[in-house]
Amino acid sequence: MPIAAAPTVAVLGLGLVGGSLFQLLHRRGHPVVGYDIDPNVRHLADRQLDGEHARVVDTVSAALDAADLTVIAVPLWSIGQIIDEIGRVSYSGLLTDVTSVKTSVATMIGERLPRARWVGGHPMAGSEHAGFAAGSATLLKNCPWVLCLEAETSIEDWLHLARWITGLGCRVFPTSSSDHDEAVARVSHIPHAIAAALTATVVDAPGGRSALSIAAGSFRDATRVAATAPDMVAAWLTANAQAVADGLTPIIDRLALLRDDLQANAQLSDKAHRWLQQAHDIRRRWPLAAGPPQRFPATASAIADIGRAGGWITNVSANHLEVRLPNRE
Amino acid sequence: MPIAAAPTVAVLGLGLVGGSLFQLLHRRGHPVVGYDIDPNVRHLADRQLDGEHARVVDTVSAALDAADLTVIAVPLWSIGQIIDEIGRVSYSGLLTDVTSVKTSVATMIGERLPRARWVGGHPMAGSEHAGFAAGSATLLKNCPWVLCLEAETSIEDWLHLARWITGLGCRVFPTSSSDHDEAVARVSHIPHAIAAALTATVVDAPGGRSALSIAAGSFRDATRVAATAPDMVAAWLTANAQAVADGLTPIIDRLALLRDDLQANAQLSDKAHRWLQQAHDIRRRWPLAAGPPQRFPATASAIADIGRAGGWITNVSANHLEVRLPNRE
Repeated sequence: MPIAAAPTVAVLGLGLVGGSLFQLLHRRGHPVVGYDIDPNVRHLADRQLDGEHARVVDTVSAALDAADLTVIAVPLWSIGQIIDEIGRVSYSGLLTDVTSVKTSVATMIGERLPRARWVGGHPMAGSEHAGFAAGSATLLKNCPWVLCLEAETSIEDWLHLARWITGLGCRVFPTSSSDHDEAVARVSHIPHAIAAALTATVVDAPGGRSALSIAAGSFRDATRVAATAPDMVAAWLTANAQAVADGLTPIIDRLALLRDDLQANAQLSDKAHRWLQQAHDIRRRWPLAAGPPQRFPATASAIADIGRAGGWITNVSANHLEVRLPNRE
Repeated sequence: MPIAAAPTVAVLGLGLVGGSLFQLLHRRGHPVVGYDIDPNVRHLADRQLDGEHARVVDTVSAALDAADLTVIAVPLWSIGQIIDEIGRVSYSGLLTDVTSVKTSVATMIGERLPRARWVGGHPMAGSEHAGFAAGSATLLKNCPWVLCLEAETSIEDWLHLARWITGLGCRVFPTSSSDHDEAVARVSHIPHAIAAALTATVVDAPGGRSALSIAAGSFRDATRVAATAPDMVAAWLTANAQAVADGLTPIIDRLALLRDDLQANAQLSDKAHRWLQQAHDIRRRWPLAAGPPQRFPATASAIADIGRAGGWITNVSANHLEVRLPNRE
C-alpha cells in the first residue's frame, strides 16, 4: 500500500535523535505523533507544541493507531521491548529505525516482527549529549541518512522512505546492514572508544591534572565524544562487536609500530611516515566533494551501485533518482 | 636588566603561531619586528602593516637589533639553525620560543647559547592549518601559555615574560620542560598520532569510500588534526619520543583489551566499563572550572606549586601573582 507524500509519522522515543525528528516534523507542519516511555519527556515535548498536526501520546498503540510510517528512536537496549510492543498491535504501515547498528536490529525484526514492512535507517547526526532537551529541529539538517536495502526489502517501501527523507532535506545513503555496520564501526563506534581511551589515559600519569589544564583544541576535539553516556557507547560496541574488533586491530597495530619506532630510536619508520602522509591526504579531501547531479533508475541494482560508490540520493521522483557521487580525485 | 612593560618584540618565524603573534602585537599597537626566512611570507606580513610601531625586516640580525624580547617561532626542524643565527649577533635581551617540545629545545639552547636569557614557552593554540595566511590576531586569544621554570631560569626574566603574556590577555601556566613534554605528549602529540591512525584505517577496508561518505560529527572531530602537515607531526613525535611512547602504551593496552573482549564474547569486561565511565566523568568536567581568584607570592617555589596544581597566572603585579587554581570537584 503506497503512503502519502506526507504520511502521518509516529516517532517512538523522544531522545536526542527522535526528539529532534519530532521537532523537525512539527516545525514543518508535517503530521506527527510522538511517544516516549518517560512522562517527563512527553510533557517536555508536549509543552512546545503549536498547531493540530503534532501530538504527544501516552502509549505506543495510540501512536501507531494514527501512523502510516513509524520511526523507532529508542536506545539500542530498548529495541527488543519496543518491537514486542509493536507486535502486540495490528500495525501495517512502514517501519524504520534510527539505531547506529543495523545487523542486530535486522535480526530482531526478522525474528519478532517477520511480516513488518521494515527498512533499516540511520541518520548520521548526534552529539555527545543525550535527551530531548539536547535535540533541536536543526540537528538532522542536511544529514547523511543511511537507508539499508537488503534482498528482502520491498523496493517500493525503500523508495517511499527515501522520498520522505529527501523531502526533509536530508541525503539518503543506500547500503546494506553489514556494510553499514562495518563503516559505522570505523567512523563512529571506534572514534568513541578511542576518545575514551585517550581521555582516561591523560590522568594516568602524575601530571594528569596539569595536563588537563593546558589541554587545548586538539584534545578538545579528539575527546569530545568521550562525554557520551558510557552505557550508550557500550551498547553500540557490543551490538557491533565483530566490526569494531576488526577495525580496532589495524589501529592498534599502527600505534604499536609508532610506539616501538619511537622507543627504539626516536625515529619514525618509513611505514609510519607513509600512514601519516596517507591520513593527511585523506583528511584534506574530506568531506568528499560531490560530482555533478546525475540521474539513476529507481531500481534495486542501481541503488546498490550508488551505495558502493559512496554516493547519495538527493531526490526521488516518479521515474528516477537524483544522485550525487563523490568526485574521484 | 629589566625590560619595559611593552618591550620591543622580535618575532622570528611568521607561520601560524608566529604570524598570529605578530598580528596580535601589531593590532594592539605593541612595538614589534617580524622576520621570516621566506620573502613571500615577509611580503604578505608587510602588506598588512599600518602604523610605525610594527615592521617586517629581511634578516635575523635586523630583527634582534631592535628587540628587548625575542620570540622564536620557527618550525622544530629549524630551531637549531635559528639558534645559531642568534648566536652570531650580540643579543642580550630576553629569549623565548613557542615550540611544542621543551626539553630538546632547552638542550639545544644550553649547548649553543649557554648565556642566553632563555625561558621556554608554548602557547597552546593552533589548528590543522599552517602558515601566516592561516593565522590571525585572535588565534592566541585567552590561550593557555605554558612557561617553563627550571632551576637555572632567572625568576626575574620569568616574571617579565609572564607579565608580558598576561598583558596580551593570555593565561600563564607554569611548569618544567619535562612535565610540559609529558603533558603535551598526552594532550596534543598523541591525539595527532591517533587521528592519523584512525583516518588511515577508514580506507583500509573494502567499503572505505562509502565509510568516508557517511562519516559525520564524531569522525570530523576525531580526525581533524590528521590534516596537519605530516612533517610537522613527525617532528613533534620524534622530538618528544620518550613521552609519546610512554603515553601510547596505556592507550594501546586499553584498545587491545576492548578488542579482545569484543572478539571473545561481544561483551565488555568490568575493566573496559570502568575506563569508559572514567573518561566520561573526566570529559564532562573539562575544561576545568576555575576556583576563586587568589594571590600567590612571586617566588619560584610558589610558581612551582601553582604549576603542580594545574593552576594559572592571570596577572603579574609588583608584589604578587594573581592566580586561579582549578576547582577540586
